Amino acid sequence: MRKIINDPVHGFITIEDDLIFELVSHPAFQRLRRIKQMALAFLVYPGAVHTRLHHALGAYHLMHRAIEELKQKGIAISAEEEQGVKIAILLHDIGHGPFSHALEHTIVDVNHEQLSLMIMEQLNHEMKGRLSLAIAIFTNQYSKHFLHQLVSSQLDVDRLDYLARDSFFTGVSEGVIGYDRIIKMLTVINDELVVEEKGIHSIEKFLIARRLMYWQVYLHKTVLSSELMLVHILKRAKELRIQGQPVFATPFLDFFLSNPFSFEDFKTNPACLQNFLAMDDYDMVASLKVWRLHEDPILSDLSGRLLDRRLFKVKFLTDSNAPEIADIKSKIIYELNGDDSLLAYYFTQDVTSNSTYSAGDEKIKILFKTGEIKEITKVENTLISEGLLVPIKKHYICYFAH
Amino acid sequence: MRKIINDPVHGFITIEDDLIFELVSHPAFQRLRRIKQMALAFLVYPGAVHTRLHHALGAYHLMHRAIEELKQKGIAISAEEEQGVKIAILLHDIGHGPFSHALEHTIVDVNHEQLSLMIMEQLNHEMKGRLSLAIAIFTNQYSKHFLHQLVSSQLDVDRLDYLARDSFFTGVSEGVIGYDRIIKMLTVINDELVVEEKGIHSIEKFLIARRLMYWQVYLHKTVLSSELMLVHILKRAKELRIQGQPVFATPFLDFFLSNPFSFEDFKTNPACLQNFLAMDDYDMVASLKVWRLHEDPILSDLSGRLLDRRLFKVKFLTDSNAPEIADIKSKIIYELNGDDSLLAYYFTQDVTSNSTYSAGDEKIKILFKTGEIKEITKVENTLISEGLLVPIKKHYICYFAH
Amino acid sequence: MRKIINDPVHGFITIEDDLIFELVSHPAFQRLRRIKQMALAFLVYPGAVHTRLHHALGAYHLMHRAIEELKQKGIAISAEEEQGVKIAILLHDIGHGPFSHALEHTIVDVNHEQLSLMIMEQLNHEMKGRLSLAIAIFTNQYSKHFLHQLVSSQLDVDRLDYLARDSFFTGVSEGVIGYDRIIKMLTVINDELVVEEKGIHSIEKFLIARRLMYWQVYLHKTVLSSELMLVHILKRAKELRIQGQPVFATPFLDFFLSNPFSFEDFKTNPACLQNFLAMDDYDMVASLKVWRLHEDPILSDLSGRLLDRRLFKVKFLTDSNAPEIADIKSKIIYELNGDDSLLAYYFTQDVTSNSTYSAGDEKIKILFKTGEIKEITKVENTLISEGLLVPIKKHYICYFAH
Amino acid sequence: MRKIINDPVHGFITIEDDLIFELVSHPAFQRLRRIKQMALAFLVYPGAVHTRLHHALGAYHLMHRAIEELKQKGIAISAEEEQGVKIAILLHDIGHGPFSHALEHTIVDVNHEQLSLMIMEQLNHEMKGRLSLAIAIFTNQYSKHFLHQLVSSQLDVDRLDYLARDSFFTGVSEGVIGYDRIIKMLTVINDELVVEEKGIHSIEKFLIARRLMYWQVYLHKTVLSSELMLVHILKRAKELRIQGQPVFATPFLDFFLSNPFSFEDFKTNPACLQNFLAMDDYDMVASLKVWRLHEDPILSDLSGRLLDRRLFKVKFLTDSNAPEIADIKSKIIYELNGDDSLLAYYFTQDVTSNSTYSAGDEKIKILFKTGEIKEITKVENTLISEGLLVPIKKHYICYFAH
Repeated sequence: MRKIINDPVHGFITIEDDLIFELVSHPAFQRLRRIKQMALAFLVYPGAVHTRLHHALGAYHLMHRAIEELKQKGIAISAEEEQGVKIAILLHDIGHGPFSHALEHTIVDVNHEQLSLMIMEQLNHEMKGRLSLAIAIFTNQYSKHFLHQLVSSQLDVDRLDYLARDSFFTGVSEGVIGYDRIIKMLTVINDELVVEEKGIHSIEKFLIARRLMYWQVYLHKTVLSSELMLVHILKRAKELRIQGQPVFATPFLDFFLSNPFSFEDFKTNPACLQNFLAMDDYDMVASLKVWRLHEDPILSDLSGRLLDRRLFKVKFLTDSNAPEIADIKSKIIYELNGDDSLLAYYFTQDVTSNSTYSAGDEKIKILFKTGEIKEITKVENTLISEGLLVPIKKHYICYFAH
Repeated sequence: MRKIINDPVHGFITIEDDLIFELVSHPAFQRLRRIKQMALAFLVYPGAVHTRLHHALGAYHLMHRAIEELKQKGIAISAEEEQGVKIAILLHDIGHGPFSHALEHTIVDVNHEQLSLMIMEQLNHEMKGRLSLAIAIFTNQYSKHFLHQLVSSQLDVDRLDYLARDSFFTGVSEGVIGYDRIIKMLTVINDELVVEEKGIHSIEKFLIARRLMYWQVYLHKTVLSSELMLVHILKRAKELRIQGQPVFATPFLDFFLSNPFSFEDFKTNPACLQNFLAMDDYDMVASLKVWRLHEDPILSDLSGRLLDRRLFKVKFLTDSNAPEIADIKSKIIYELNGDDSLLAYYFTQDVTSNSTYSAGDEKIKILFKTGEIKEITKVENTLISEGLLVPIKKHYICYFAH
Repeated sequence: MRKIINDPVHGFITIEDDLIFELVSHPAFQRLRRIKQMALAFLVYPGAVHTRLHHALGAYHLMHRAIEELKQKGIAISAEEEQGVKIAILLHDIGHGPFSHALEHTIVDVNHEQLSLMIMEQLNHEMKGRLSLAIAIFTNQYSKHFLHQLVSSQLDVDRLDYLARDSFFTGVSEGVIGYDRIIKMLTVINDELVVEEKGIHSIEKFLIARRLMYWQVYLHKTVLSSELMLVHILKRAKELRIQGQPVFATPFLDFFLSNPFSFEDFKTNPACLQNFLAMDDYDMVASLKVWRLHEDPILSDLSGRLLDRRLFKVKFLTDSNAPEIADIKSKIIYELNGDDSLLAYYFTQDVTSNSTYSAGDEKIKILFKTGEIKEITKVENTLISEGLLVPIKKHYICYFAH
Repeated sequence: MRKIINDPVHGFITIEDDLIFELVSHPAFQRLRRIKQMALAFLVYPGAVHTRLHHALGAYHLMHRAIEELKQKGIAISAEEEQGVKIAILLHDIGHGPFSHALEHTIVDVNHEQLSLMIMEQLNHEMKGRLSLAIAIFTNQYSKHFLHQLVSSQLDVDRLDYLARDSFFTGVSEGVIGYDRIIKMLTVINDELVVEEKGIHSIEKFLIARRLMYWQVYLHKTVLSSELMLVHILKRAKELRIQGQPVFATPFLDFFLSNPFSFEDFKTNPACLQNFLAMDDYDMVASLKVWRLHEDPILSDLSGRLLDRRLFKVKFLTDSNAPEIADIKSKIIYELNGDDSLLAYYFTQDVTSNSTYSAGDEKIKILFKTGEIKEITKVENTLISEGLLVPIKKHYICYFAH
């Protein structure tokens, strides 16, 4: 069995392992075709409609390339380990639901990392333990730590793929990275993934590209606004549903609208995961389209606005007590005919933040020709100096305006 | 008002005209965000999830570039004509429904060209006649014929954009075309769009690229198969709905499942167009996902297969009476436990066809330095000889197989 | 020893074999840095200044990829064979001199294939027989025929690289090919290189791309003109030199200007090859620049014209007896003040020709899923029909005009 | 007159102005075809053989795009000013000689900016004053300051083109910049070029890309080494020539080898500029090739090394007194058989430096939606903080080693 998949980002992706092919064909994985990688970012970047399935395949491909490179450099990686680490990356995001960010704050109060692991375990059960090594790598319980670092660290193939892919589909050249070169420069010393000295500029470029993509794309005002609107919509739909009003939904979405389920519920009630795995972007958007005709004016107004791209405004503030907040609130209440009970649906105040490099997490280490290994922030004359370690926080308000 | 949109294919698309901005913001246009340009082709090419809105904007951009070029060459084009021809291309596909090809053969028996015009007329009514010139160009009733040719001919900007865009998102390099060069080589002689002699190789390349995209992408076996499966599914859902069985659907899809509407109905009953404009990929797929749990075994089986990508097989045949047909039919009936009433859902025989260049339609003309104009098939030593004028027809069967 | 080279066309080229690294470092190979791959084509396409060294490395890289692919498919290729076939492609063009086409018609009357072999043999001598297998593959004397086909056939990696590379550096998108896909589709049956059925459209695209590159680039009128001018210049310089007039030249160029050497001379007099290996684009152009100040009016006029890009005109004709020839000749003689002895330097009549696919040479074969193998022209519904087998011939004249 | 030039970087470059066409056709400009933009960088990046002519045309093209953009935004730019600023950028580097950096430190002790102006003035004389406005803009003596900023500032189109072009030809993705977006974001306020707020991330990316290109490409160890070797070679050739030894050279190179000419000489002796304009890469390399056979062991050894790419080693040091220097010197002297008079040719100590952004020069200013204008280092949360203003200095030694 040998399958070749065209990928405009990496060229061709080849699958040659039967177990991996079985996983890719599984409904739980195929479902990722129906979940957009970048959620609502397509409202700003019309090309950004690529799917989580596509990203998972791309990250799998880069893992294949990284493993080839390490093996050529003499790093011992067995066939089982290679299969395990490839499966770990293939399934790393399988727990994502539709519009995850909005979803996890409203109707499915469980984070996607927990769900990824839960789904992997269910697949492992179905496949009679053949995913055990992959799960050990994913959860960092396998003896070779560097395999986990390839799946999850500040330089994992997940990030290499999503930056390259999101740049490609948005057309934002600021995110273009030299992932080819980074992969060529990887090696392993004392069970730690390190980057050869010659790759240092590519690493700098990668960290800066990620930073720019956050501010220009992932945390773009319009993206923040549309996600917050979806939060308001889902909350309102849930309120109405729980009040017993008829709210159109597919059975899968209805399951979550009708009841708040905790992570405990997911562990004890199989219907939770079953319905979760049946739900995707299509349940959400199809329902939104019916809701725009709902008799509840809040639900219908907000749904129509999101569908037609008549979005709330976002304004960044110097701090959370900026004086203009009160003014804007008054204006909105006036527009809402003085009904300040509506303010909760038409105004949000929040803070968003991003770190270029995090001092705490799985760090990036540079291997010098002398044999010395230094964490990247400790290397002289690099861009990633102390200053860039401080996360940037931006206060903002998101509100209805003509 | 000046809006810049990032497009990974063309770079940046600029909108500077208020009327065009109003049209782009209209719900009837924004709805194209929810209809994939290449329907089910993403089942083969995972990147092919770009939308009809994106293509419409891209074609608009190429029209802008073509008009700039022609004006620089001294061709008279007034500001009104420029706006008109841009609107005509922007809206040329606005009548597409979700998965058009399958849709038009099952539940909406009206073709998208008719609907595009009907929608343009409705928008013209809303906008108090400001689209009249665009409609005249679109329907080839405007005095300057070459403007219509830019919108619809064998070398229109529609084709230039979709080939470039579909190649980009599928990653199929066979479709890459030199649209930049083609646009630079356009001019107008006696109200006819012609290509300067130096552009002849780019035209050859364009026609060949289109031919290869048809066979490698648009008419790929898996694409044919998935479209036929969707046809069977929609037909079955409609049968059950008309028999009075409960069939989950959004109200918009239900409208079309419950009744066959003709083009006449669209003209007389405003609910037809209203529901059509509310329907997109999300209604279809959300319903498919519920249908996979339907008690009707045909509907649930086919829906599950399409969603999980367990597709029918397609086999090309030498002719419509190929001897293997009978064999295959028997095998399917055997697999279906001898129930040959099911054959209609599990077996299709059809023919697909494509022309590299069509002798009849708006032809491609080459302008020589001597002033002579020749139709491309009449030029010596080109690839587009008589032989390539004959449409290629392929007989095929599409059928259930393990 | 592991060397990574940045290549804008293929990404990164890796050299891991000591012998190959030794060859790349050899002065005979480094000299290819000083010979432009596309000779005078930069006069039309300013980016086309890439070198024969770059092409040789690129073809080597594609050979590496092809061998990897075949080995993964279970084709037996030993480490020695792999090294041999890589060396064969690395050195396949090592016999090229500066502006080969013009050179071989004027001062070095030996073709580059003969010289490539002679140089390989000299290197083999230096390296104590370690190139023997490479030479056997290059000359098609090795038992595994398919290795030779990878180096030299109608689908060799030489062509794959030069089309991709020349398109990239000229910016002519007509030559873009899907070499990635072609390589993925290669396999070997009965010691013959074949292409899997799924790759047929990529092969069509490749042949058409090559055809278009010939007419749009390699045989572009301005390229033909500048090459013919260089022929005239070199002939004139040689005449003057043999007459005993002082003609500036580097010692290496002077060696060839001063005497006509035959292939026999190359075989018997080591100074021939030694001077040939010392000569490159720089000898030619540096001399041209001095010749523009020469007292011979023909040599100085032609040299100045070529350097400043004041080129002769090229006109394609219907046949070799076209009536306009006489007219043009009279005009030129008039311009040359009636001195018809100058005509030989200011007027040429010739014919140029190219075949899209040649029925005679190492053919391209398609492997069908049924196991059947067909030559590409025998496959139904492909572009490469009988009509395209006929070489296109173009008669032309090249002449001085204001 | 309308000329279209294929450029793999920007697509197509169009020249529509007769005067500009005349300048492009002038031998002084055509000569730039024979000078590589990146000098010896091709020894590391084999694709980096593009020419100064190509860069000049590319910068001209970006100027055309920037002017179009500004005019669309209502900035007043007359036809004369447009022509002037385009000519200024087209000719901004016309004073470059072959391998400028090495040249200016050895045999032509005049910097290229001075020569560019001198050549422009000569062309202006030939063209009867038609370049006067271009020269005024180039020298910042024209009333509209922003036109000069487009030609020369920290955000000029010169930098936009060379970063894009050098990235393209080297294949170093670290230098890819969003020049399209930057140009779209330019505007003019109070005669100052400013960037709209939305373009801030593109500017950050541009400055970082430039920084990375310096360290990864322009100041790459191998590039430093080869340039220093050329300096030693030219110095040695000049010494021998002045001593009266026969040293092969074209007449143009001989002119500069035989005598030191000052800027004063260039102003008073027309032969200086005349010979300078006749000299390019070909004179240098053709001579090097003969010098490798020279009887002077230093000249022949160094020339052979540079031609065959057997280069000196470069080592970065913590400071100019690093203890390893003495060790290395002793080793070299030992290798040179104790002859420490040779050390000057086989050992160099120097310092190289680069600033990401310079506080002094023509600064980059950001225009906020509020109308406020801030210099980029004064904007909160950007990368270009105080820390990046300090130039990075690297001490190094370059020396002979096996």
